[in-house]
Amino acid sequence: MKKNKHVITGLLLLLSMAVVISGCSPKEGDSKQKAVIEKVYHWKMVTTWPKNFPGLGTGANNLASLIDKMSGGRIKVKVYGAKELVPAFEVFDAVSRGTAEMGHGAAYYWKGKNEAIQFFSTIPFGLTADEMNGWLYHGGGLKLWREVYAQYNLVPAAAGNTGVQMGGWFNREIKSLADIKGLKMRIPGLGGEVFKRAGGTPVNLPGGELYTALQTGALDATEWVGPYNDLAFGFYKVAKYYYYPGWHEPGTTLEAIINKKAFDALPADLQEIVLAACKIVNQDMLAEYMARNNAALETLINEHHVQLRAFPDDVLKELRRISDEVVEELANKDDTAKRIYASLKKYREQVTAWDEISERAFLRARTIK
Amino acid sequence: MKKNKHVITGLLLLLSMAVVISGCSPKEGDSKQKAVIEKVYHWKMVTTWPKNFPGLGTGANNLASLIDKMSGGRIKVKVYGAKELVPAFEVFDAVSRGTAEMGHGAAYYWKGKNEAIQFFSTIPFGLTADEMNGWLYHGGGLKLWREVYAQYNLVPAAAGNTGVQMGGWFNREIKSLADIKGLKMRIPGLGGEVFKRAGGTPVNLPGGELYTALQTGALDATEWVGPYNDLAFGFYKVAKYYYYPGWHEPGTTLEAIINKKAFDALPADLQEIVLAACKIVNQDMLAEYMARNNAALETLINEHHVQLRAFPDDVLKELRRISDEVVEELANKDDTAKRIYASLKKYREQVTAWDEISERAFLRARTIK
Repeated sequence: MKKNKHVITGLLLLLSMAVVISGCSPKEGDSKQKAVIEKVYHWKMVTTWPKNFPGLGTGANNLASLIDKMSGGRIKVKVYGAKELVPAFEVFDAVSRGTAEMGHGAAYYWKGKNEAIQFFSTIPFGLTADEMNGWLYHGGGLKLWREVYAQYNLVPAAAGNTGVQMGGWFNREIKSLADIKGLKMRIPGLGGEVFKRAGGTPVNLPGGELYTALQTGALDATEWVGPYNDLAFGFYKVAKYYYYPGWHEPGTTLEAIINKKAFDALPADLQEIVLAACKIVNQDMLAEYMARNNAALETLINEHHVQLRAFPDDVLKELRRISDEVVEELANKDDTAKRIYASLKKYREQVTAWDEISERAFLRARTIK
Repeated sequence: MKKNKHVITGLLLLLSMAVVISGCSPKEGDSKQKAVIEKVYHWKMVTTWPKNFPGLGTGANNLASLIDKMSGGRIKVKVYGAKELVPAFEVFDAVSRGTAEMGHGAAYYWKGKNEAIQFFSTIPFGLTADEMNGWLYHGGGLKLWREVYAQYNLVPAAAGNTGVQMGGWFNREIKSLADIKGLKMRIPGLGGEVFKRAGGTPVNLPGGELYTALQTGALDATEWVGPYNDLAFGFYKVAKYYYYPGWHEPGTTLEAIINKKAFDALPADLQEIVLAACKIVNQDMLAEYMARNNAALETLINEHHVQLRAFPDDVLKELRRISDEVVEELANKDDTAKRIYASLKKYREQVTAWDEISERAFLRARTIK
């Protein structure tokens, strides 16, 4: 009898759990209810930014927060600033090997892995933010990106954009190409290579050292992002001229990287949610820069008396000529680079033609005297 | 004894369900599991577009599909094309009264409700897509939009953007303002009012009637969207000149509207998911137009011998002067309009200044001869 009781109880128990788990009790109206077992995933996100850095670091925070809210708390993502868990430039490897499930940075930081990867962030005289999105989402770019990153056990996603950056802070006026000769400027990556071939002396220093380097004269110039970020760094105190446009970074795509094994282990709805959060941050960060840059620029000009300057046309033309040369060389490094650049180049030709009669023609019409 | 058995069994049953439902059984590693009862919501989405219309209608489909996938099937949204459930221009009322839980259209279609609503779609010589996003998400625009729509029992969200549109199809060349006099053009809304004050004869006809009207000469001109959509409509067969830029619609924001009661009834994670899907479509549709417009334009020019023309500067300047006049009048209609325009105007001044040295300066640098 006692044995029977236990058996019956056990059976009922199993039955009750099965009903709750399989969830098929129809309800009023056209709705039905089901119950599922929910697992909570605890993820780490390592980033290349100082914790809470305006725009970039806060974008990473938003990404984590969106994933939490959309998943109803089923994925909790803890964000780490640069150096908190791993140094900035080790984010790629940390996520690749699974030390963290997720990372936030920019593709050009990993050029040591494969130079072709830089195409997924920005190239000199390349694409604006909207153009990048067109290429990534509807022009084959994201497909190539996923293919390349799969080799490193990573799933990439566009997750932020700075928009067109500024040309940088200068303590020497640039009136012609001659003024670039010997100029010591912090300008990393492909832009730095172009600058070097134009006669300048490119230097790579971390953001935190730029202020002092400009102050002591160790640097004549530096680029960073745009007014919203640059105002916070206080460069106006140690540099006189603020140049535009940012020919070297016309719309830098920031990226989220997700460990492929961690991603594959998620149920389908959570995979959608993680990628959705990346897309939202990709748009939202650009909107934030768009809305904040000008107020910051006004402060720089009106309160701090920064002198705004445009690069002369002949300088821009020569930088563009050299940029094409540098980018073509990169494109010929290997087959991966060739394939990515073939796609990007064709798209850029098309979208440039379209921009001429849409965005650019309209912006001109709005201000024509 | 038998009674005892039942009591014990019942208690165990309740206990087992409670454990499963409340979800507090710790699991291996740092994860835990919980079970919840899931209700499935069946929603209708009415739209102002022909079912599956490229860009606009497919954007509404994507919205429904994203909500389904991100929610793991907890919200099923059925999309209805214009006239399937309600006519295009009754979408606002249908969602307001709860006939459908959701709608997809554009704010300027509802100017009959309150003329100020038009500010949330686009105005002549207004904002580009990125600029609109800056205003909505980080410049106070969305807050105002929500406030205004709450009066109609609606939650609004930006859910698509066409980017800069084309100026339209013409059978008469526009060499000066004199060529606009008496011109019969399909151009609705604020653009139509501007066109009228410039001497033209604006007409409002549904998209489906435009082809025949151009063919028979009932119309001299029509605007629609841009190459990707216009090629599909075949306007190149009945109009000779294709003008740019689309001064009257520089970046039209499409909208999703959600019945407030239906929205409030959702759990917090599903509310996040619905709004997230809108944000994704808002970005994705723009990317689609960006990627597709130029290929369509090439087909129009190279295969169909369409003649591409820019509006002359004096025409654009006069249209801009009148636009400012028309928009200021709209802004003075009532307190709501005044408040929205005050926010929009201040933002537009700032963002225009920023565009001069960022987007516009870069696009110029990329093509400077």
